[in-house]
Amino acid sequence: MDVLDAAKRARSASRNMVGVSGETRNKALLAIADEIDKQKERIKEVNSEDTEQASKTNLATPLIKRLNLNDSKIADLTKGLRDLAKLEDPIGKTLLSKQLDEGLELYKVTCPIGVIGAVFESRPDALVQIATLCLKSGNAIILKGGSEAARTNEFLAGLIRNSIRKFDGIPEDMVQLLETREDLARLLELDEYVDLLIPRGSSELVRFIKKNTTIPVLGHAEGICHEYVDADAALDMAVEICYDAKTQYPAVCNALNTLLVHQDVADAFLSKMGKRYQEAHVELRGDEKTRKILLYAKEAVEEDWSTEHLDLILNVKVVDSLQQAIDHINRYSSHHTDGIVTESEERGRKFLRDVDSAVVLQNASTRFSDGYRFGFGAEVGISTNKIHARGPVGLDGLVTYKYMIVGAGHVVSSYVGKSAKAFNHRNLEKHWDP
Amino acid sequence: MDVLDAAKRARSASRNMVGVSGETRNKALLAIADEIDKQKERIKEVNSEDTEQASKTNLATPLIKRLNLNDSKIADLTKGLRDLAKLEDPIGKTLLSKQLDEGLELYKVTCPIGVIGAVFESRPDALVQIATLCLKSGNAIILKGGSEAARTNEFLAGLIRNSIRKFDGIPEDMVQLLETREDLARLLELDEYVDLLIPRGSSELVRFIKKNTTIPVLGHAEGICHEYVDADAALDMAVEICYDAKTQYPAVCNALNTLLVHQDVADAFLSKMGKRYQEAHVELRGDEKTRKILLYAKEAVEEDWSTEHLDLILNVKVVDSLQQAIDHINRYSSHHTDGIVTESEERGRKFLRDVDSAVVLQNASTRFSDGYRFGFGAEVGISTNKIHARGPVGLDGLVTYKYMIVGAGHVVSSYVGKSAKAFNHRNLEKHWDP
Repeated sequence: MDVLDAAKRARSASRNMVGVSGETRNKALLAIADEIDKQKERIKEVNSEDTEQASKTNLATPLIKRLNLNDSKIADLTKGLRDLAKLEDPIGKTLLSKQLDEGLELYKVTCPIGVIGAVFESRPDALVQIATLCLKSGNAIILKGGSEAARTNEFLAGLIRNSIRKFDGIPEDMVQLLETREDLARLLELDEYVDLLIPRGSSELVRFIKKNTTIPVLGHAEGICHEYVDADAALDMAVEICYDAKTQYPAVCNALNTLLVHQDVADAFLSKMGKRYQEAHVELRGDEKTRKILLYAKEAVEEDWSTEHLDLILNVKVVDSLQQAIDHINRYSSHHTDGIVTESEERGRKFLRDVDSAVVLQNASTRFSDGYRFGFGAEVGISTNKIHARGPVGLDGLVTYKYMIVGAGHVVSSYVGKSAKAFNHRNLEKHWDP
Repeated sequence: MDVLDAAKRARSASRNMVGVSGETRNKALLAIADEIDKQKERIKEVNSEDTEQASKTNLATPLIKRLNLNDSKIADLTKGLRDLAKLEDPIGKTLLSKQLDEGLELYKVTCPIGVIGAVFESRPDALVQIATLCLKSGNAIILKGGSEAARTNEFLAGLIRNSIRKFDGIPEDMVQLLETREDLARLLELDEYVDLLIPRGSSELVRFIKKNTTIPVLGHAEGICHEYVDADAALDMAVEICYDAKTQYPAVCNALNTLLVHQDVADAFLSKMGKRYQEAHVELRGDEKTRKILLYAKEAVEEDWSTEHLDLILNVKVVDSLQQAIDHINRYSSHHTDGIVTESEERGRKFLRDVDSAVVLQNASTRFSDGYRFGFGAEVGISTNKIHARGPVGLDGLVTYKYMIVGAGHVVSSYVGKSAKAFNHRNLEKHWDP
């Protein structure tokens, strides 16, 4: 499929999607879930062709695991779709309503963004998740999956297209699938047709995309997360939090990457903490002061502080003060998730205020930084952007708003000059009725 | 001043700004207003040096008018500052508060974006407006003004820096001033230090900036606005609206650029409308059907439909249907502001829903698309972005949010596996107390 043609079809489909009711979008979501259940065996067959091919080409085992669609993953997928159908419609919500003057009303109402470009690797379940989040929010979607999952992706995209076109007004062109690296390069140029890119994959992929497009990108390249153990931390609590943040699932973006400790408690805390980390086989890379306390720690080099380890490796640094911890984090953090352990409300609040990250925590593990744990129902991803959506992003990251004005022949010239009418700017508690 | 150095100073200042209370920021705004009043004569002297120089270099008269700071503009400026001080603090607002589980609370709280880059031409009053909007919202600002206003800009930036540094915690480095085109080119590269660019000026300037930076840009390049007169429009109302939209202030982005008319009313409407436009010396450029009705209309060429006229020139087209009008607008509009004149609620709602623009209107002039008329108090600009802020943007376009979590030693491992605790995701009606 020609990429420009796919983008034009998606844009055209997105124009039609704004007229589809939330009820119809939800019915289409349930139809996709039913169809996946019905075709489960066929999905697994097609998927096994991809995984066999991947084994032959010596794809790394974790990647093959991600590629593989088993019964449990398919069950998660269909449950997720049925849950998504139950969530409140993110479209058509009135954010503000105001009378500007007698008979002249202003409404600010949520609407779909338009065309989303999603780029992901390996996981074919991500294709279904992203496409259906876009369906729920009334957006068209251009999907670019990994070539290792080509057969599964094509089958699933076809299944979705076949399921949705039975519903009045939902164009099957709402879902477009691209396959090759060249397709991706071309897609990144099409800022006229694509409103937002959502990459899900390695930090290399995300950085490549951010560098090579003028289309806004929602997501994060890296998760370089910190916990700072303050002078007055409850040390046993600090040990449990830092253990959880590092070891509970080290391969993810919200896992702990660097531990900072106030010098006043460094001896006491690091001795305890070090033992726990040794039991879990965590490799420690410390600064000079850390290595005087934990003799077995390796030396941390400058590069370590800005490297996302995604593994049982942890940087450790002893700091002189809360301010030094904040400065270190603002310099080296990827502005994703950073925490403090302290019993002082005042010092905790200073940290939460001054650390410039999407999620900041006091006395809790960085691993809580997650849309499902936040109760958002569905997660688009975690964003380190400063604009639009920051932190864990639910469906609200896939919508924008427009201003609607209804008058009765109002003209601006009545509001200027000598006998100018005045605006009243009275808040209405009215909802826009589409 | 070295641009990188200026950007680093701004970033550092922005880190300190988060600790400055709303009360202190408001006091600083009032101090700037007082200082402008006090130094009014000196400001006019410095400004007259710029305007004299500009006259010598044969700068166009409208540009010299914009450059000139007279008593009335200075009075508007100080009144604006005192009004801004009265507006609600956009920082520290709790957007959401939730209990995730007993003792584990989540807050979503507004905070400054960080460092804003503002690029503007000619008007030195824009420097004061933008710098003070950033002060109100706790952001640092890097200003790049036009070289024709160099003396005035330098004086005003110095005045602001001198006024704010008297206030506890507000670093004078909050305001940075650049001057040359080379400085701008360098600034556009500094995505590590600048979080958002706000260009105010010609569409050429805005397009140049959008093309040459990876920093997000807030604003619009063009205002190609439409009014569509439907088959069942009240024609006298339509005449008044289309007259106002075109002639009330033709040089601005929300002025009418193209008029679309349903064929059923084309004869009756265009005959009336044409007379009014002739009286106002509006040059009409029509399609074939229009020129059969208005014999004096010039021929519209393809380029006209996508050209922002900013003058008493108007494109006119007769369409077969509401859908054709919507399709024309979605193709040629700059997605800024578009309106319909119709007595049909159903057809009005379809137009408002299907036209993909920041502001859509029924039975009102496009000229209402404006932050002050919307009652936003202060206007950052008008955005045609689909993400972050769309349409007229108030102070909310200069803030982002962060998620703050306060726990009591909570770890994620308690919420997974066999005896997993459950989240309760209970809404709290609590406000974050900074």
